[in-house]
Amino acid sequence: MSDSFQFQRRIVYADCTVGNHVYYSRYLDMLEQARGELFRHIGSPLLKLQGEGVVFPVIGLTVSYAGPARYDDLIAIALWITELGAVRLSFGFRISSAEGKTLVEGETRHVCVSLEEKPRRLPKEVGEALRPFFRTSNAP
Amino acid sequence: MSDSFQFQRRIVYADCTVGNHVYYSRYLDMLEQARGELFRHIGSPLLKLQGEGVVFPVIGLTVSYAGPARYDDLIAIALWITELGAVRLSFGFRISSAEGKTLVEGETRHVCVSLEEKPRRLPKEVGEALRPFFRTSNAP
Amino acid sequence: MSDSFQFQRRIVYADCTVGNHVYYSRYLDMLEQARGELFRHIGSPLLKLQGEGVVFPVIGLTVSYAGPARYDDLIAIALWITELGAVRLSFGFRISSAEGKTLVEGETRHVCVSLEEKPRRLPKEVGEALRPFFRTSNAP
Amino acid sequence: MSDSFQFQRRIVYADCTVGNHVYYSRYLDMLEQARGELFRHIGSPLLKLQGEGVVFPVIGLTVSYAGPARYDDLIAIALWITELGAVRLSFGFRISSAEGKTLVEGETRHVCVSLEEKPRRLPKEVGEALRPFFRTSNAP
Repeated sequence: MSDSFQFQRRIVYADCTVGNHVYYSRYLDMLEQARGELFRHIGSPLLKLQGEGVVFPVIGLTVSYAGPARYDDLIAIALWITELGAVRLSFGFRISSAEGKTLVEGETRHVCVSLEEKPRRLPKEVGEALRPFFRTSNAP
Repeated sequence: MSDSFQFQRRIVYADCTVGNHVYYSRYLDMLEQARGELFRHIGSPLLKLQGEGVVFPVIGLTVSYAGPARYDDLIAIALWITELGAVRLSFGFRISSAEGKTLVEGETRHVCVSLEEKPRRLPKEVGEALRPFFRTSNAP
Repeated sequence: MSDSFQFQRRIVYADCTVGNHVYYSRYLDMLEQARGELFRHIGSPLLKLQGEGVVFPVIGLTVSYAGPARYDDLIAIALWITELGAVRLSFGFRISSAEGKTLVEGETRHVCVSLEEKPRRLPKEVGEALRPFFRTSNAP
Repeated sequence: MSDSFQFQRRIVYADCTVGNHVYYSRYLDMLEQARGELFRHIGSPLLKLQGEGVVFPVIGLTVSYAGPARYDDLIAIALWITELGAVRLSFGFRISSAEGKTLVEGETRHVCVSLEEKPRRLPKEVGEALRPFFRTSNAP
């Protein structure tokens, strides 16, 4: 049994577009924010890792949109780990409404690289600290 | 043999983040811009379709990132149709550098809905005008 | 003696641009978020006011940039009222670093309008609830 | 008699918010795009200047909003120079609708600095190339 990391965020006008719903790319900004807080939570903020020459650019993503979030909604983002390899790291995610309805779900895939954008091994302590969030399937 | 729709765009500072590369969600903004120009090109601008009660929200997407675009790069976006159903419409895309290197590629999946967000049939003239851009595979 | 409304926010990669500093327009997004929380704090969330046909579009702004916020900085936004008229409402603001250094300061000027964008009087209870945040000068 | 630099841009969904108008901060992104094209026009693209250790961060701005741009509008941005000092450079701007109605106008104030963010003199050839766009007043 594994955990997911939970993050909440209030939708602002800057997130929304015509028709009063969140613009489709802005969910990715929210996911970045949630990943940053997950790394902080495990004691390895991304800024600290960057200072040690470790960054995690996105190499791929899959997103399904089930329903819109709207202005002032308080959404919940759940994150978990779907791949934890020597140099690869993937996150499953589900964004839900305050009522628990799934709005957006999917996966973002990352690779561990140096500041010169060369692949490098995921630091051991990061891998260990992320392990409790690992799931063998991406089912929410 | 089918065509793709071609669109060019210059990268600005607003697109970029730390490390001088385009932030991962901003490519989706550029794809929206390119789709808008494709609809204008076929004689059915999205604003006109919206006035007729037809909109195309995104229901899913798949993106692979192969390399970064950077400030002031002139990128080329190629769009084509991968699905053209009664109510569904999908676009394949490839974003390339000025030298022709693939930077980002994938697919965005849309559904045709009314302004009340109910599924409705794709207008016949839109389907016909998009047909020349249809490909049976998403291979670029 | 008057109060200011305090709001904190963590800088994310989506806020930043080349050279590792916050892109100049993104501070306005943060100010919108802070104003939204101020209206919630006084018991009149903007969504509720919008439901009552009252919105506050920006009609002008003045911004001075004294220094950059950077990725992962925890910034503090202070907001206060500089004008509280029949239909006009202005906010002074100061964005500071965690160490208290002023990064950005200025004023945003708004007008109270109906959903049809016609000027209308600021609701009396909103004016009263904002009064404690009023200052006769914009000095921080 | 002086010129202004002219730039056109189509409004996309990514620029807009609830109520079908451009979000107030996004005009600043458009101004950045226009300034970039002005520097390209005078033969000194900002990327080239950056390669020579010269950047122009914003130190202040004043904006008046007179009316909204909306989805698919083709707006015109006029830029001119209001200050051309040893290390300071300011741009007046006016954003107009296709019908010539002023939507947004104001000024952005910049300083010439090195990559280490130290003030430095504006390169002589840049000052000379910008001079034709200089106006002694910010009247449009």
